[in-house]
This record gives sequence, C-alpha cells and structure tokens, in this order.
Amino acid sequence: MSEQMEQIIERMKSDGIDIAFFNDPQTVEYLVGFSSEPHERILALILFQDAPPILFTPALDQEDAKASVDGIDVYSYLDTENPWQSIKNLIVDKSLPTTNWAIEKEQLTVAKREALQSQFPNSQFEKDYSKLLHTIRMQKTSAELEKMKKAGFWADEAIKIGARALKVGITESEVVAEIEYQLKKRGVDQMSFSTMVLFGENAASPHGVPGPNKLKEDQFVLFDLGVIYEGYASDTTRTLFFGDQPTSEQKDVYQTVLNAHDTAMDQAKINMTASELDTIARRIINQKGYGPYFNHRLGHGIGQSVHEFPSIMEGNQLPLIDSMCFSIEPGIYIPGNIGVRIEDCGYLDDSGFHSFTFFPTTIDAYQNFIKESK
Amino acid sequence: MSEQMEQIIERMKSDGIDIAFFNDPQTVEYLVGFSSEPHERILALILFQDAPPILFTPALDQEDAKASVDGIDVYSYLDTENPWQSIKNLIVDKSLPTTNWAIEKEQLTVAKREALQSQFPNSQFEKDYSKLLHTIRMQKTSAELEKMKKAGFWADEAIKIGARALKVGITESEVVAEIEYQLKKRGVDQMSFSTMVLFGENAASPHGVPGPNKLKEDQFVLFDLGVIYEGYASDTTRTLFFGDQPTSEQKDVYQTVLNAHDTAMDQAKINMTASELDTIARRIINQKGYGPYFNHRLGHGIGQSVHEFPSIMEGNQLPLIDSMCFSIEPGIYIPGNIGVRIEDCGYLDDSGFHSFTFFPTTIDAYQNFIKESK
Repeated sequence: MSEQMEQIIERMKSDGIDIAFFNDPQTVEYLVGFSSEPHERILALILFQDAPPILFTPALDQEDAKASVDGIDVYSYLDTENPWQSIKNLIVDKSLPTTNWAIEKEQLTVAKREALQSQFPNSQFEKDYSKLLHTIRMQKTSAELEKMKKAGFWADEAIKIGARALKVGITESEVVAEIEYQLKKRGVDQMSFSTMVLFGENAASPHGVPGPNKLKEDQFVLFDLGVIYEGYASDTTRTLFFGDQPTSEQKDVYQTVLNAHDTAMDQAKINMTASELDTIARRIINQKGYGPYFNHRLGHGIGQSVHEFPSIMEGNQLPLIDSMCFSIEPGIYIPGNIGVRIEDCGYLDDSGFHSFTFFPTTIDAYQNFIKESK
Repeated sequence: MSEQMEQIIERMKSDGIDIAFFNDPQTVEYLVGFSSEPHERILALILFQDAPPILFTPALDQEDAKASVDGIDVYSYLDTENPWQSIKNLIVDKSLPTTNWAIEKEQLTVAKREALQSQFPNSQFEKDYSKLLHTIRMQKTSAELEKMKKAGFWADEAIKIGARALKVGITESEVVAEIEYQLKKRGVDQMSFSTMVLFGENAASPHGVPGPNKLKEDQFVLFDLGVIYEGYASDTTRTLFFGDQPTSEQKDVYQTVLNAHDTAMDQAKINMTASELDTIARRIINQKGYGPYFNHRLGHGIGQSVHEFPSIMEGNQLPLIDSMCFSIEPGIYIPGNIGVRIEDCGYLDDSGFHSFTFFPTTIDAYQNFIKESK
C-alpha cells in the first residue's frame, strides 16, 4: 500500500472515519497508480481502517486495474448493474462500521453523494478530505520530482520545435500541429492542456485561441504549453520576439514581465506565503504602470494535473513548503496590442526555487536559438 | 434568449423555482453559446423567472463572454475575490425571491453546493435539473444536426488519413500523430477524446492505449476517434483488416460484429426503447457464442460531448425519440487475440437511423480504399 494511502488511513483513525470514498480519477491514480477516465461510469477507491482497500471500476477497466495494482482488491460492475448497489454489497460483506464517511467534497457531485446516502441512509458524509489530499499531493516525493523534471524537459523540447517552425506566413494552427506531431513521433502523445501559440495582438487575450493568423516580422509569438509524461504535467510559457527590431514599447513590456518573473524566481523561498510571492512580482509590474494589464494570479500548483493546489495569489496566506511545485507566470496583456507572459514551473527547497524548464528568456532568445541551431 | 433557456424558465415557473444555477461549462455553452473551461475557477449561468439571466465568469473570461452573448448580463470576479460572495451580492441586488433553487446535481460538487448554501442559508437546493437538461439536449435542433454532420465528415476524413498511413512496421503512435497532424493542418484542432489506433491483439482491450506496437501483415487495425467541430462531437470506430487473407476466426468475429451493427442501424426506430435496440445487436452476438466478449453497452448519446444521455443499454426503458443522436457500436474482444468494434453515430427520424459517418464497413474496405486511392 502506498505511503500516501497509509497517511490517509492514519488520519481516518484519528478522525474516527470508518470509510473514505475517493472517486476523482486523479486521486485514484495518485493513491493506487491506476489511471482511467470513467466518463459517466463510476471509478472509486474505498479505504477502511482495518480492511484492505477496494478499487471499484467499470467492467471495462477490470483487467487493466488488476494488472496495475497490488495489495488492493479490485471489483467491477457491468453497465447493466447499479454501481451504488454493488458498492453497498461489497462494503456490507465486510461487516465493518459504516457510520462516518470522508469524501472529496471538491470532486464528488451532489448526485453521487445522494446515491451513496440512499445506500447508507444512516451514515454521515460530512467529513471532507479534499484539503487533506491537496496537502499530501502538494509535497512532492523525490520520485514525483524526477517525473516533473522529465515532463519539463519535453516542454522545453516543444518550445524548440515551435521556435524552429516559425517563419513569415505560417499560421498559429500550423505551429501547434508541428509541435504536437514532432512530440508524438518521439512518443510524447499527451499535452497537459490545449497547446497555445499566439501571434502579436492575439496573445493579448489570455484566452486567445490558435487560428489562421499568419506570422509577420517583428511580432511576439506566445507559446503556452506542456505535456503529461509518466502521469505528471509540465507547463511553460515563452514569448519569443520574431524579428530583431522590437519597438521601445515591446521592449518595455517584455523587460517588465521578465523582471517580475526573474525576481519572483529569485526571491521565492520556504515559509514565504503564496500572497507574498504574488506581491513581489505584481509590485514590479505596478511600478511600471502596467498593473491593470496583469489580470491574473502569479501562479498555480502543478503535479499530475496542470492546475493543482495551491493558488499563488494575493490573499492566500498559505506558507510555501519544501518540495511544493508551482508556476511563476507574470504577464502583461494590452488588448488589441501586445501580450507577453513568461512562465516556469519548479519546486522549492532550502536553496530556493528550481525550475523544470530552461529555454532562455531574454528578448533576443529566439534570435540566439536560431543562430545556434544553424 | 435561446429557445432552450426559455423552456427552462417556463419549467421554473411551473416548478416554483426562483433561481436555476448551472455551472457545467457544457451546459453554459449549450444555453448561451459561450465556451470556456474555468478549471478550478467559477463559471455559472443563473436564471430567474422575471429577470435577465446572469452569466458569471472569471475576470479572464469577461471580454470574451461579453463578445459572445447578448441579452445576458455578464459579471466577473477576480481571483482575489470570493466568487460565492460576488454571486450572492449580484442576486441580492435584484431583490427577487431566493428560496427555491434548481441545480445540476450531476455536475455541481458537494463543496460548491455547500458554498451556495453558506451564502443563502435559508434557501432550498433540492431540485435537480440534470435530467431536464439531458432531455432538452437529447432532442437536437436542425442547426445542431448540421454541426454533427460536419463533425462526422471530419471523423471519416480522419479514418482515411489513418488508412493511408498504414504500412508494415509503422507504430500505433505514429498513425495517431499522422491523423491529428493532418487534421490540424486542415484547421481541425480538437479531438473529441484521445485518438485510438490499436493493432491486432492490443485492440482486444477496449481501453488499449496506442503505443510502440508495429503493424504486421494480416492484422486488424482498430481506429476509434472523433473530433469537436463548431462545438459538436463526432465518434466513429472502424476495424480495418490490413492484409488480404483473414483467418476464418477473424472473418467470423468481424462478420458477427458487422451483422450486429448493421441490424441495429436498420431496425432502430422512434419509440423503440434503448434497451430493445441494445438487445437487437446483443442477440446476434450471443447467438454466435461471443456474448461474453461483448462486455459493454451498445451505445451512448452524443452531442457537444462524446458521452451524453441516453445510454443505449439493457434495462434502459427510455423510448428513442425524433432527432435523438447516439452511437451504435457493438464489439467483440477476445483477450490476447482479437478485438473488433464497428461504430457509427447518427440521429433518428421517422425514416430511421441516419449515420453521420460513412467510411465503408466490409472486411475488405481497407483493400478497396487503397485501390481507389491509387
């Protein structure tokens, strides 16, 4: 049984929880190493104080699940069966107490909670283990950090592929296609979110979507992308200047974002609060008068998924801890004009913040990269 | 305001519901035409009996949202604000009754429901509009059917791209990369789920994942794929025989699946129950003794998402209705040996089932396609 599952069971004992029910596919993957997206079907990990855990899956998944977990009983149901009835039978067979349940309130839907309640009308489902899981997942193991580094390596490769593909007249969609095609050919077949490649003013919309825009000289090209590798996500943003004559405005916006990014990376340290780190970057952008154009938080946690606990933002008094992984991604978006964001994800330790991605961040990074590639 | 929103408001009046709260991004897109994935942020559509609807979005989305909806008030919140507090203030400002709420219990998490309850401690959140939305979404408008046909066209194109890419020694991952690359170059940049290309026995796992397996002569190649086009999904499966000498077992399995598929397509009609349609296909597979190897339902609804209401399966007494869209996808999976599935999605009308996809289904379809392409 995984160390993390043991941590949860210890907590169940101190909380007086009889049953912990987890149905978020990522939680299940995190705790038992079995990965599956059940769509509208039911996938659940059920923990007890004094009985082996149950992994409950759709029949379709049973073989794969059995092959990928050990020390855990795998049970399945057919599409024609009522999964909640099956779960009840499995639990009742163990003749263990079923009074106090812990659930993931941030994942469990009201309908599923009511389905459980209907099978266990006298049970309590008040205890929420969402934050417990956030906390456990926040502190990455060294094995997890190794996977995050690999995912970061592939994000850097993706930026290089994209940079090589740039030429006057190419469209955003074509660059996206090229990046994902080259990655897939190298065996990396899952991006951590829709790859973003945005030219010029299209990058000024933080939710801009790659399309038929054609690249022109002296435009910024914003890449925001990441991959899932061995179950862990990467996420990086680079805004490359395609040309050699940035305007003074382009330079000023870029240098301001870069300065905010670098200062936050340098000053991030254990026990600083998430809010303090956000402020370090935001102050720099405010001082240059671009504050209103930095309209999102500084960063987010990352791990199996690209948006995890914690949120690096004003007001979040959570102290940053050792082995916590998160993004630092200041940006300035002047509608209809310029969008620049620079993002690295990394982890914290006693010596500071260590990025998983390394593509250069100077405004002439693209020019230098092309020269070196020749 | 969309016809569907008016339908819901009518229902609110007859149900005595003061406020309907929808936070599923697909529901929001369906009802107001604004598409966004808020991740851990809050996106919500709030309907009232006698006041204009509110679209509530993260600040990041505000501009895009305002640009894409009309007749709807768009309000946003910053990452530093409590969205539930903001929602409360917006609603209280209207000084309308707030006692009876309808929610999507199949989408709303327990944590979000509790957040709403904490802002409106005296309100009731018992009414569930999940099924109402399923029912409204199930019956597609002619405009939706046109989009489903376009999405189907691109699924057929994807199968053709994949078929052209087949050659001895190519890997499953390479074929997937080729399909998605060609589609992206043609402007189709979103698949409706992870593209599946599985060779030989790897196709015997319904959850097999494309990998480094190399294609050999006389293997089946299972393609299961679809795209999202103009917000609507396609989903088709073809199992192409790569070679010209299928074994008698390969032929028998293939013909059995094809017979089940064709018979279900021919006999599907309005007012038949979902269960009856499942039985029509399953009986054919059972009669040939392959029943235990057809371990999933016959089909699923499809629309904006690739898995929608209803489930075409044994026990579902829901009558099939006009303009309902769903898949017909019988399969036989003999572990370690053969996997064959043939799937088309389509819609029903008085004259029967009309598929959105047309790639040929005979066992020599691949051979014929290659000949014709030459």
